[in-house]
Amino acid sequence: MDNKFSPAEIIILGIDPGLAVTGWGIIHVHGQSLTAIGSGQIKTTTKETRSARLGKIALQIRSIIKEYSPTEVAVEQQFVAKNVRSAMAIGEARAAAMIAAADFSLPVYEFAPKSIKEAVAGFGNATKEQVQQMVFMQLEISEAVKSFDVSDAFAVALTRFADANLELAMVRE
Amino acid sequence: MDNKFSPAEIIILGIDPGLAVTGWGIIHVHGQSLTAIGSGQIKTTTKETRSARLGKIALQIRSIIKEYSPTEVAVEQQFVAKNVRSAMAIGEARAAAMIAAADFSLPVYEFAPKSIKEAVAGFGNATKEQVQQMVFMQLEISEAVKSFDVSDAFAVALTRFADANLELAMVRE
Repeated sequence: MDNKFSPAEIIILGIDPGLAVTGWGIIHVHGQSLTAIGSGQIKTTTKETRSARLGKIALQIRSIIKEYSPTEVAVEQQFVAKNVRSAMAIGEARAAAMIAAADFSLPVYEFAPKSIKEAVAGFGNATKEQVQQMVFMQLEISEAVKSFDVSDAFAVALTRFADANLELAMVRE
Repeated sequence: MDNKFSPAEIIILGIDPGLAVTGWGIIHVHGQSLTAIGSGQIKTTTKETRSARLGKIALQIRSIIKEYSPTEVAVEQQFVAKNVRSAMAIGEARAAAMIAAADFSLPVYEFAPKSIKEAVAGFGNATKEQVQQMVFMQLEISEAVKSFDVSDAFAVALTRFADANLELAMVRE
């Protein structure tokens, strides 16, 4: 079995990508115990060119990867958008996260918002607040995380943890 | 005046981004004379993960930039898509091109398909074949470029050239 999937070894970088704000959160997994070891927001403004904004997001995610050495990356995979233009912007920001991960040959796992809500809050129609509350409880944090961008990033990392746990349980059976 | 905008110094990398096929073409500008100095296609398949595909596109564009040292990058900016999902894929591929350019601090110019058709073929409703014919004539190439992905990449580079030429004419007035 690949050591990468041993719970003792997992460090998951969760990313909630957005052109204006990209949230990120890192969880370290020791057996069944989880610790939040880093989080933050990458912000860009419309004063920068589109290329500069995307370059900044990719560059900062690369820095985060260098600093925390995650073993895998989990990205929120939004499938819904108001219109074509906003869908393109979502795709662009997501690409910045995926390219940064690919630069370090890290596996990337994508999860739809509904799967994240189900995994973290127990039901697919959970509100953003309910998801955030569950993230706070599971990771025993609250003060550090005020923005939904960051709690959503932790939520997708937790979803990957739940998934990896399931894979592991199946291997053990 | 910034030397970068002197026609003698311009090397333009044109990119027609796509997740399955990204076309690229490089033109070297000496005064009013243009030479195609390189072109190709970056292909990815659905057998690779999305992250691997985007990482490959970004990586190959970085290699092209290292080899040809373009002074600027011109990217086709599609605004229309069949649906949200294809819009996201377009955005992702475009981001790979823009992030590679940002990694080298190269200026990126975006042009809508209609502007490219107007600049290259003289009218916004030109067909792909007409645009390709004009690209062949202006760059005195034909054998080397068989795919629309490549001729479209040259077309966006030529559009940037026409634009830069105009800027220069305005500076000289």
